[in-house]
Formats: sequence, C-alpha cells, structure tokens
Amino acid sequence: MDNFEFFNDTRIIFGRGAEDRIGALTARYSKSILWVYGGSSIKRTGQYDRVAASLKAAGVGYTELPGVMPNPRLSLVYEGIRLCREKDIGFVLAVGGGSAIDTAKAIAIGAVYDGDVWDFFEEKTEPVKTLPVGTILTIPAAGSESSTSSVITKEEGQIKRPINYTLLYPKFSILDPELAFTLPKYQMACGATDILSHLMERYFTNSSDVELSDRLIESTFKTVMHNLPTVLEKPDDYSAWAEIMWSGTVAHNDLFSSGRECDWGSHAIEHQLSALYDVAHGAGLAVITPAWMKYVYRHDVGRFAQFANRVWNIDVDFFHPEKTALEGIARLEHFLHSIGLTTSLRELTGDDTRLEEMADRCTDGDSSTVGKFIPLHRQDVLAVYRLAL
Amino acid sequence: MDNFEFFNDTRIIFGRGAEDRIGALTARYSKSILWVYGGSSIKRTGQYDRVAASLKAAGVGYTELPGVMPNPRLSLVYEGIRLCREKDIGFVLAVGGGSAIDTAKAIAIGAVYDGDVWDFFEEKTEPVKTLPVGTILTIPAAGSESSTSSVITKEEGQIKRPINYTLLYPKFSILDPELAFTLPKYQMACGATDILSHLMERYFTNSSDVELSDRLIESTFKTVMHNLPTVLEKPDDYSAWAEIMWSGTVAHNDLFSSGRECDWGSHAIEHQLSALYDVAHGAGLAVITPAWMKYVYRHDVGRFAQFANRVWNIDVDFFHPEKTALEGIARLEHFLHSIGLTTSLRELTGDDTRLEEMADRCTDGDSSTVGKFIPLHRQDVLAVYRLAL
Repeated sequence: MDNFEFFNDTRIIFGRGAEDRIGALTARYSKSILWVYGGSSIKRTGQYDRVAASLKAAGVGYTELPGVMPNPRLSLVYEGIRLCREKDIGFVLAVGGGSAIDTAKAIAIGAVYDGDVWDFFEEKTEPVKTLPVGTILTIPAAGSESSTSSVITKEEGQIKRPINYTLLYPKFSILDPELAFTLPKYQMACGATDILSHLMERYFTNSSDVELSDRLIESTFKTVMHNLPTVLEKPDDYSAWAEIMWSGTVAHNDLFSSGRECDWGSHAIEHQLSALYDVAHGAGLAVITPAWMKYVYRHDVGRFAQFANRVWNIDVDFFHPEKTALEGIARLEHFLHSIGLTTSLRELTGDDTRLEEMADRCTDGDSSTVGKFIPLHRQDVLAVYRLAL
Repeated sequence: MDNFEFFNDTRIIFGRGAEDRIGALTARYSKSILWVYGGSSIKRTGQYDRVAASLKAAGVGYTELPGVMPNPRLSLVYEGIRLCREKDIGFVLAVGGGSAIDTAKAIAIGAVYDGDVWDFFEEKTEPVKTLPVGTILTIPAAGSESSTSSVITKEEGQIKRPINYTLLYPKFSILDPELAFTLPKYQMACGATDILSHLMERYFTNSSDVELSDRLIESTFKTVMHNLPTVLEKPDDYSAWAEIMWSGTVAHNDLFSSGRECDWGSHAIEHQLSALYDVAHGAGLAVITPAWMKYVYRHDVGRFAQFANRVWNIDVDFFHPEKTALEGIARLEHFLHSIGLTTSLRELTGDDTRLEEMADRCTDGDSSTVGKFIPLHRQDVLAVYRLAL
C-alpha cells in the first residue's frame, strides 16, 4: 500500500424528498446564490418548483444560470462568474448531473480569482479559495457530487480538461434516488458506465498489497452491475436506484484511491472523443475501456484474472490465466452491449478519419503520456483507438 | 436502503514515518496542547521521542497526560480537563489506541463545557463545542481515530458508557502501520476482533436493500481475516498491518452504516464484562458475539447464510439454510480460537456468578432493551451470557 492522505468533507444527505431541505441547507452559507442547471427536464419533472419553493421559504434569493449541456462549456462558466460578481453571490448551487456540478465548481473558483479561470485547467496556477458549492444530484454518473474534480470543455479548439483539488469538494450534496426515475435509458446506461470506469481506473494499478481497496472496488462494481438491469427494466425501482446512486458517489469520493496509484488513461483517451464528437462521456468510455484493456492486460495478467474471477465469477484457469483475463474483458463487453451501448468507435461517432488527430491531442503531439498502469505514448493511444474501431 | 446523512471530516495521513509530521499538523491549531498517552510503551519504542522532537521543532508547547489504561477512566478525563483550563490548552493530541483517543475526545468536550463532562454520557445534554483533537494511532482496533465515539468508564459503580457525536471526529489522524509492529499478540487479536465486531454490528440489520454496504462490510471483514494470521506470525509485516490498520478505520468511520440500522447489542452486552472484570474489550467481544449470533440467527436465517457464504466461502445448503447459517457462526468461533482468543465467558473472567447482575446493568434492571436486530430484554441478555459460558 502506498502512503496517502485522505480527506473528504462533503456532507451527504440521502433519501426520498431530501431536496426539500435545500433552502435550509443553503441558507447556512448565503442568502444570495447562483443556481446552475441544464435544460427543461427539471421543470418538466417538477423539481424546479420544489427547489424554488424551498429556497424561497428559507429566504434565499437566487439568480438562475440554466443552459448547462453535456461536456459543459467554458463560455457558460464565464457567464456564471460574471453573474457572481455582478450580483454579489455567496454560494453556487448545482441541480443536475456532473455537467451542472462541474460548471458550478468552475464558477465557484473563478468568481474569487482575479485571472482567467481557464488558468487552473492549463495548470498555470492553483485555486486557493472558492465560493461554497452545494448540489442536488439528478444523474448517478460522474461522482462530482463528492469529488475533487471538474471537467470543462473550451469551445475554441474543442479542448476538454480536468482539474482536481480538495477545495472542489461540495459542502453538501443531496442524493434522492427518485430524481433518477425519469432519465432516458441511454443516459442511465452511460451514467453507470462512467461509474464503472471510475472503479476500473482505480482498480488497474501498479501498487502492490492493496487488498482492501481491491475488494471495496469489486464490491461496488458488482453492486452497480447487479442493479443496472433492474432500473433499465423498471425505472422507478427506488431500491435499485439507491444502490446505483450511492455506488456512484462512493466510487469517486477518493476513498477507493487511498494507497494506490490510479490509471486515468481511458478517461484521457475518451475525452478526445467527447471533445471532438460531443458524444456522452459514458458512451465514449464504453468504446475505449475494453480496447484499453485488450492493449494493456499482458502487463499484469494476474490482476486482470482477479478482476475476471471476483467481479464476473469466472473460474480461474490456473494453467492459462491469460484466458481468464480475456474472458473478463469479453464479459465486460457483453455487459455493455446488454445495456444498450456500443463498443465500436466507428459506430458511436460515425467516423474513423480522426484517430491520428485524437492521438496527437491526447499526448500533446507525443510530448506526454497518458495513464499510469502503462504510460501510453502517441502510438499506444493510436493503437487503442484502432482496437476500438 | 434507509434515508441517511453521512459526514466525516477527519483527515487521514497514512504511511511510514507519518508521525514525524505531527508538529506541523498540530501547529495549525494551537501552540499549547495537551498530549494524552498510556504508559511506558511509547517511550520504549522511541515514539515518544519522535513526537516530542516534532512538536518542539514546530514550536508547539505540550503538557503531558500519561496514564491512560484500557477501559479508560473518568478520573483521568477530569484530570485532563483541569489541565486544559489551567494551562489554556487549545488542542488535545492522543498517541495510542482507542483508550487514549476516547480519553482525549472526552477531555476536549469537557474542557469547554461548564458542567460535569459525565452529563454527556448520561445523556443529560449534548456537546455543542469541542477543542480540536488529533491522533497518532498505535493500535488498530477501536476505530476512534475517525469515529464519532468515545467510551469512558466511571469508576464509581463501574459504569461504562459510549457517546456518539460528529463533533467528536478528530481533525486529523496519523496512521503508520509500523507503530503496530511491537504490539503483544494478544492485543493484536483483541484489536482485530474489535474491528470485526464493528463490521458485524453494522452487518446484522433489519434494513432491506442494502447491497452496497453489505458487500463493503464483507470485503473489509475478509481483508482483516486474511491479514491477521500474517501479522501474528510475522509482526513486522508492513503490508499486512497496512491492510488491518486501514480496515479498522474504514470499519468504523460511519460510511458502512449509511442507509442501514445497526445493532450494537453485542457491544452493550460486552461493556458489562469489561466494566466488571476489566478484560480487554476485544476479548469480551470474542466471547459475546458468537453467543449473540446463536441466540438471534433464526430472526433472519438468510442474512446469516449470506454471511456464511460470502465471508467464509461456505456453500449454501439451499434446502437447510439454517445449517449454512450455523456453519458461518462455527467458522467465526474457529477463527477466534485460531488467533488465541477464548469464546468462553467463564474462561475469560474466571467467574460465572454475576450473570444476573450484568443482565440487570445492561438493561437498567429490565427497563430498557439493547440492540436493534432483535431488541433484547433482560432475560435475552441473560440467555446470551449463558450461551457464552
């Protein structure tokens, strides 16, 4: 086990109707807030009215910033920062999935920073303060409700970049599984795949002696896998959603990274797909992850065999462990197909002409590598894209 | 899954030599601290000198409060509170196991309270503020390094009582697995049993649809079970200690209680043993837990069969699931014997004459019940003691 620090001070409020507490929770921080959300879905479902009523009852005044889209854009972050300054905002509330929350986080650090918020994403400097952020989660997927991450896309050049700081932990996050009932099935599948990816990015590690976190990751993986078919069949199954939603938070709240190197190669390789083609991040991960696995599994056949055995209950072939490893990867592919996702890049994007360009972008023209399990150079990334075709 | 709130803001600093950072970490809170520890062991191992050097280097002045004993005493808490007030102390540091940490927590809330700190343990009132507490953990067991708990024994009447408040989370805890190398084997076994008990108190629940936390608990249980024989054989096995130490924290940091009712009956029944006979808490739990299981397993044979199957890899007898359940309990007993603990109350205490008295004390003379899985009345508690003989 590697040395580590673990700290996470997000307060989780979980359960039916928890969003009605939003006014009282928010009022502790500010009576003047920015409310970030996406499109019409929260109005259609009545969530908008419930949140507004709770805020009003608590005497919290809000400025609205709707219009968050998947792969959230820098321009909207700038707009939010402008509003925060103009209206003397003291708190940023996100209602939505990872895109709304990531936007809120970027606004919150940008509003109290003198320079351009994109500086943080270009690693020119680090944020030292932030407005407090709170969330009401509606899509179990990104884990941003209790994570250090924000991922924003700069439209100019279609550049998608992540940042990670403990400063970005939301002060609180409200998780009501009922809010996921109305998601389109494709979004359910993409969200769950993002959760599984967060687990696999942590699982495939070069750190040795990480038994506890291995097992915790496997447990969470199995729980998501077990409950996803249920909600696809019966979208109002509260118990199954509760398992998936809580798994999504636990998968990315950093507890399972403790003491182990994590990879994040598949995420970096996927980000080029969603940046160029604006596909759903989870859909891109379904394409990239199995291809990445096929490219790297020989680096640690034992770990891939363990994954196959413990997660997929595949009997270990002790005489040919690589067969076990490959069977685990095949089962993952089969599972992704069963939930309605493709594992073909060509099928997802309708294009196969920009692989070289994506490999360049992913590695800054072969000047850097991605991933830790095996650091991948430009030609490796290209090979992964080709395996994913 | 039940509705829940989860919040834990203890910062964990984990790894070899982490205790050398104690001065810098403490200095953020106060330059005048109370340092709580047990006996001579930290002097013998050189930890005392290392901590003192780090504190001095950071300009932190300390008042020492040695003399913490297992089943920590209220009188020492009073002494600590007196010192805090007399010396204008701003921070309480515990170096040790659960007893030192629980003592530090009780001092920290008592020092800023006008009344008698025992009021909190008698539930006369709740603490609303505390001095900040930090810890260097030397015994993986109680989980107090990242828990809401403090358990103190009032000598007058030999009354052992727990309190639980989020205010009691330490600000930081330093976990260096090397500090456990020098523990006596009996203490290793008792500590691990306490960890397993924290997992089982959470596992045996009436809450339904708790798949994720079931699996996380099983994972942690298996990890402790797998690594304990290693450290008993080879006490300086860093990797095995790292698994056990981190498991001990995770088992009791409240993540695994999220969304489920927990029992705590065995703890309450055991507390009478350690209060009257001053036996190690873990040793008492080894006696009480299997007896409790035999008394209650019919209440949910399926859950006990799941425990047997998933934790002990016992094939499920679908035609006689109660056999599977009982086999799981037998395997737990066998494991406890294999690590050098007795499961016989008579053997542990050398006495069998105070069962009625303990059952009375446990249930306030049959005016209250203990545990949630099945609320146990006086006669039930007595039956558990008898099963444990």
